[in-house]
Amino acid sequence: MPHFFAFVTSSCTTIEHLLRRTLVQLKRYWSLRTTKQSAHHKFQISHLKFVVFLCVLCASVAQTKAQTWIWYPGDYEIWLSNQMQNRRTDRGTFFPVFWKVDSHYNLMDFHKEFTLAQPEELSIYVEGKYNVKLDGKPFEGTPTKIIVPAGKHKINIKVFNQANVPAIFVKGKTIVSDATWLVTFEDKEWIDETGKTSDISATKWLNVGSWNFNMPKQLPSQFKLPVTVQKAVSITKNGNAQLVDFGKETFGFIKLHGLKGKGNITLYYGESKEEAQSQKGAVTLDMLNMQQASKNDSVMPLSKAFRYVNVVTEGTVQFDSISMLYEYANLKERGLFTCSDAQINQIYDVAKYTFHLNTREFFIDGIKRDRWVWSGDAYQSYLMNYYSYFDNATVSRTLLALRGKDPVTGHINTIMDYTFYWFLGIYDYYLYTGDKTFITQFYPRMQSLMEYCLGRRNKDGLMQGLPGDWIFIDWADKLSKKGEVSFEQLLLCRSLETMGLCANIANEKTDAEKYNQYAKELKAKLFSIYWNNSKQALVHSRVDGKQTENVTRYSNMFSIFFNYFNQQQKDAVKKSVLLNDSIQKITTPYMRFYELEALCAMGEQNYVTQQIKDYWGGMLNLGATSFWEEYNPSKKGAEHLAMYGREFGKSLCHAWGASPIYLLGKYYLGVQPTAPGYAAYIIQPSLGGLQWIEGKVPTPTSDIELYVSKSSIKVKGTTAGVGTLLIKSKTKPTGAAIIDKGNNTYQIFIEAGKAYEINYEVL
Amino acid sequence: MPHFFAFVTSSCTTIEHLLRRTLVQLKRYWSLRTTKQSAHHKFQISHLKFVVFLCVLCASVAQTKAQTWIWYPGDYEIWLSNQMQNRRTDRGTFFPVFWKVDSHYNLMDFHKEFTLAQPEELSIYVEGKYNVKLDGKPFEGTPTKIIVPAGKHKINIKVFNQANVPAIFVKGKTIVSDATWLVTFEDKEWIDETGKTSDISATKWLNVGSWNFNMPKQLPSQFKLPVTVQKAVSITKNGNAQLVDFGKETFGFIKLHGLKGKGNITLYYGESKEEAQSQKGAVTLDMLNMQQASKNDSVMPLSKAFRYVNVVTEGTVQFDSISMLYEYANLKERGLFTCSDAQINQIYDVAKYTFHLNTREFFIDGIKRDRWVWSGDAYQSYLMNYYSYFDNATVSRTLLALRGKDPVTGHINTIMDYTFYWFLGIYDYYLYTGDKTFITQFYPRMQSLMEYCLGRRNKDGLMQGLPGDWIFIDWADKLSKKGEVSFEQLLLCRSLETMGLCANIANEKTDAEKYNQYAKELKAKLFSIYWNNSKQALVHSRVDGKQTENVTRYSNMFSIFFNYFNQQQKDAVKKSVLLNDSIQKITTPYMRFYELEALCAMGEQNYVTQQIKDYWGGMLNLGATSFWEEYNPSKKGAEHLAMYGREFGKSLCHAWGASPIYLLGKYYLGVQPTAPGYAAYIIQPSLGGLQWIEGKVPTPTSDIELYVSKSSIKVKGTTAGVGTLLIKSKTKPTGAAIIDKGNNTYQIFIEAGKAYEINYEVL
Repeated sequence: MPHFFAFVTSSCTTIEHLLRRTLVQLKRYWSLRTTKQSAHHKFQISHLKFVVFLCVLCASVAQTKAQTWIWYPGDYEIWLSNQMQNRRTDRGTFFPVFWKVDSHYNLMDFHKEFTLAQPEELSIYVEGKYNVKLDGKPFEGTPTKIIVPAGKHKINIKVFNQANVPAIFVKGKTIVSDATWLVTFEDKEWIDETGKTSDISATKWLNVGSWNFNMPKQLPSQFKLPVTVQKAVSITKNGNAQLVDFGKETFGFIKLHGLKGKGNITLYYGESKEEAQSQKGAVTLDMLNMQQASKNDSVMPLSKAFRYVNVVTEGTVQFDSISMLYEYANLKERGLFTCSDAQINQIYDVAKYTFHLNTREFFIDGIKRDRWVWSGDAYQSYLMNYYSYFDNATVSRTLLALRGKDPVTGHINTIMDYTFYWFLGIYDYYLYTGDKTFITQFYPRMQSLMEYCLGRRNKDGLMQGLPGDWIFIDWADKLSKKGEVSFEQLLLCRSLETMGLCANIANEKTDAEKYNQYAKELKAKLFSIYWNNSKQALVHSRVDGKQTENVTRYSNMFSIFFNYFNQQQKDAVKKSVLLNDSIQKITTPYMRFYELEALCAMGEQNYVTQQIKDYWGGMLNLGATSFWEEYNPSKKGAEHLAMYGREFGKSLCHAWGASPIYLLGKYYLGVQPTAPGYAAYIIQPSLGGLQWIEGKVPTPTSDIELYVSKSSIKVKGTTAGVGTLLIKSKTKPTGAAIIDKGNNTYQIFIEAGKAYEINYEVL
Repeated sequence: MPHFFAFVTSSCTTIEHLLRRTLVQLKRYWSLRTTKQSAHHKFQISHLKFVVFLCVLCASVAQTKAQTWIWYPGDYEIWLSNQMQNRRTDRGTFFPVFWKVDSHYNLMDFHKEFTLAQPEELSIYVEGKYNVKLDGKPFEGTPTKIIVPAGKHKINIKVFNQANVPAIFVKGKTIVSDATWLVTFEDKEWIDETGKTSDISATKWLNVGSWNFNMPKQLPSQFKLPVTVQKAVSITKNGNAQLVDFGKETFGFIKLHGLKGKGNITLYYGESKEEAQSQKGAVTLDMLNMQQASKNDSVMPLSKAFRYVNVVTEGTVQFDSISMLYEYANLKERGLFTCSDAQINQIYDVAKYTFHLNTREFFIDGIKRDRWVWSGDAYQSYLMNYYSYFDNATVSRTLLALRGKDPVTGHINTIMDYTFYWFLGIYDYYLYTGDKTFITQFYPRMQSLMEYCLGRRNKDGLMQGLPGDWIFIDWADKLSKKGEVSFEQLLLCRSLETMGLCANIANEKTDAEKYNQYAKELKAKLFSIYWNNSKQALVHSRVDGKQTENVTRYSNMFSIFFNYFNQQQKDAVKKSVLLNDSIQKITTPYMRFYELEALCAMGEQNYVTQQIKDYWGGMLNLGATSFWEEYNPSKKGAEHLAMYGREFGKSLCHAWGASPIYLLGKYYLGVQPTAPGYAAYIIQPSLGGLQWIEGKVPTPTSDIELYVSKSSIKVKGTTAGVGTLLIKSKTKPTGAAIIDKGNNTYQIFIEAGKAYEINYEVL
């Protein structure tokens, strides 16, 4: 069991709790400030400002309750993902997903009980057909305003909406629609022949879901990402074609200004110049048939991914100019990394931009293709998010969209490994955010998905591909999916551990025991079945009951950062697999993510730094303005653009290309939570051969700030939670209370809200 | 096991098969006609005409394929029921159901493989966003016409529609959208990195669903029942109110002609005059606020049930006249019953009108209230339908709407008995129609519902009310629902038998064995636990492991026509329960249905005739123009209008009030199938004390016609299937080949397409 598992299960810190602690910190700081001036004045002042901001926020939340549109938790997420995933086109043809997609519940009962000191007028806004009841008695018609008398009351709003998600927005002086409302899709309230209501109702009420639709006019069904105008960098005319270059990979709606004439106008989009200029090969295009006598502006109906657009006109069609409406998720960058190496800094910036483009309504795989929510891809985005936006709403939204609803009829995205990444995503989500409500509300969906998996194990308790199961693992040449693949068992084992954790949180103790027991048994099997002592590695698979000879990197590298290997095995595997060139190389950033993570987890940052520079730097050297779906340094020229048997099949802006964000945050700045929601965390910085590094890591309460050189470490902890700084130094560091852990390792406790400057001598 | 069970499982006759047999019959008749004149010339001529009609129909079906809108089976039914069940209002307030309702799958793949001799142009109409593929290759955009080359091809159409059901309509010369297309909501087709499609797909393809939308413009999402104008019978003015009488119970949209002025106009609807005139009590109303300077016609937005409308104006509002748009299901009446008793004939006519009003998009409970699809109510409508419309599309549509989708989270309509009636409805549906496709396609939904039930049995294998379960049985005073109610076990037992039958049809032999075994065990328990020898009856329930003293009619009467009792038990129960006035009387037509059925099944038609005259005649004597939800002869005046603690709470037009349709068809005309789809049937007529009876009973191929007096029986069988006429006669009948079965019982085989006239002497 990995080391933070014990912490995860031991305690939980909610945001409310953290805000309360912040108030205590504020008092302490205020008294400090009036009595003495600290050496780290600057740090403290900025920290203090943040604390004050948080307290003001906290107070304002308490006083004027924030009303927001509310719905059945998970339903809007599913509905929105349906909208999103049905926007993909390929050569102008609608291109939807090939797995089951679900719908929202269309009939919904919302309620809230409250006590009023004074009568109050409520304004009610609803998406759908509805009724309103006070203490069980309906108002006539569909009231938009009601008066609620003083006293204890219960308000129910029942809504039907087939096309969109039933949602309500209520605003009174004290009664507002917020996260405290309860909701159900079956109230099971019947009457007998005398009109008496049944008294054996078993309605399951959940807490409502919401996002940030905080105004009556912000209808959830009308949600669109914001856009902003961007101009082209250059336009090259060539006969009836104009090649428009926007300077770098981008995403949005092309706008043609002053368009008029008669004939066709076709826009060929390209992530590369070659693609835009290939009328037969461009993956996305827009064709308009014009009959326009006077000039008009025209915005293309669907957003597209491109750097180049080749606009080809026929007949008398002409236009004055072209621009685009850049479409983006309006998230705040909280994480930061900068260092002494300019190329690493550039890689970090392009990674962030790549991640930004792929962070939309959900975490998607790529902006050109598939523009879908894929669980394995999203899993990496969750991790990157914890070191950049820390926007947990996008994480939970993506998790819910992926999960859909019961019954489970196939793996998530049809892929077995992607089902398991979903569980792993929840594991991390809880660790980084401490969001217990999510776990308790959605435990039943976790359980039914896990039971689906367990029901598909073979007689040996292992999972192998059954008809309809896609065993993905990675895009890699001749990768065997036959028999029982070790990697799948490994992910199942980790998923079972997650279920054990979540069952405990949901207070399902029997389940917890069961899942933990299954995990324990499976972990033992992993080693008894797949470990090959002469190869000093886990083999790739077992076929017909026999270990295969094949060793791949996948299960070996995961077993390192899952802490499934002991130290001796880790060291052996590093040599026999990770640093062994005879083992098939990974050519996707997707699996390079984990490969480098495994090396980082073993302290190989110096090696990893060079790998990052070579691999991601390699893409930059080829002119990449965002990172790709796949990069094989041995390919040449336009070969890099092809994939899936198509000349321009490859996505040149793929979320999984952005992993340096995660690696640099977690293994260079070295910050990670060890208890849910950063109630406890460690900082274990590593220069990885660089002169200095500096950055921020976001947490639920505040950012952790860090500067590390070879002789100095400046750190500011969170406003709540206990940090542990672990450093290696030739000499005993100074500047704080230092605990010598032996073997040149020193530990410093980082108190909540305090800043430190440590002098040391890097080892 | 009831006697027709053996037949049901032994064979199955499809309509196609029947049509082929019809052709054989036609040839035979034609040769007969040219060689000799039969005594029953008239019968034969009309029969022949029908046969010719059928053959023409058959030939035309074969030549010009009928194209129709198609969808995922069951999805349109669920969607339409959502529309229907969310149209109820109460005092102007939206009043939806309180159970979970489901949605259609919003992403759908349709396909069909075919071989063309010539290239062909297809017209494509779609409800939703879509793409079209030929042999896996997509057409650009969303084509409305495509050319398909000669040869073997596969066409796929993929559709997304969140608001409405994904549906397609395809028309070419030979390729048309019809029942032969296949459909899935998850095609699970992925590719590898080279673009190669997976070869281990496990897609489940079902046959599409359809109805009668046979024109491109008949969009399923736009479906409305037809309407026709009806005039008021009288209008009584009273100050600013006008009481409008439409002469009898009716249903539709009120239309106000020449409406103008300023102020409110309110329409109070009443099934009774008292209700319409009660501004505070009328259950349904429409209120319009007018600001209309010039005259205009206005149709109310929602259809309502009423005989009377009280129109109350305020301010300067006035109108010229009032009419209504009568809304109805356009079904053909095929069943018929007439007899020597004028009151019975009137009861039959009012029953048919009551049933007609409640037969809409689905079989609903009542047109004023609830206007919902209730499984127990619908179950009786299915049975009435088999003796009137024989419109099986309304049966299957209602069954599918009721079932909804997985997961099962509660009983159908939240009522345990209503879940069981759903299974019983399938049992009868298969027996009367022989529709195997329905069983095989929806077996998984039957199974999951049954597994839900079985999962809720207690340690003794019995079902008792758990939180959230409504044990309904009947509207009856102080009816105990405590402990394990015998009636529920009885229905579960019959449901298990149905599952055994359906599992066999779906070729799930292991399931079949399991369910049959469960049924057998439960049937044994029914007698060991509930039979009381001193009371000579099944008792009502067991509480805390002890038989209660209470005897009610429910499980006793069902055990008669389920054939669970032996003859000795039947005779005993008739005396100890059915004809025993000290056992609590039934006051709903709902349970009178089964009570009289049990008596009929025991040959007590003479007694039942009087019961029908008293009970249904009693309502007519009180001025009923349709039959009621409840009728207690001991009540007086306006007491009859009240229910559920509301002055006008009772529905005066309730489907379950129409049961004479069923009783007279099944137990007087005496016709019922003994093999699926009337491949075999019996006719066991009973005069029930009447001088003569005459009528028709519909079957999948043709109507069975019958006239019975005390001395003569004229019968015309179906055009396919083997009939058995069973009569009791003092003397040996004449006019056909007579088999003496002893005990004054005689049997005559009714050959397909033949007419008979038998002389006999009624016993």
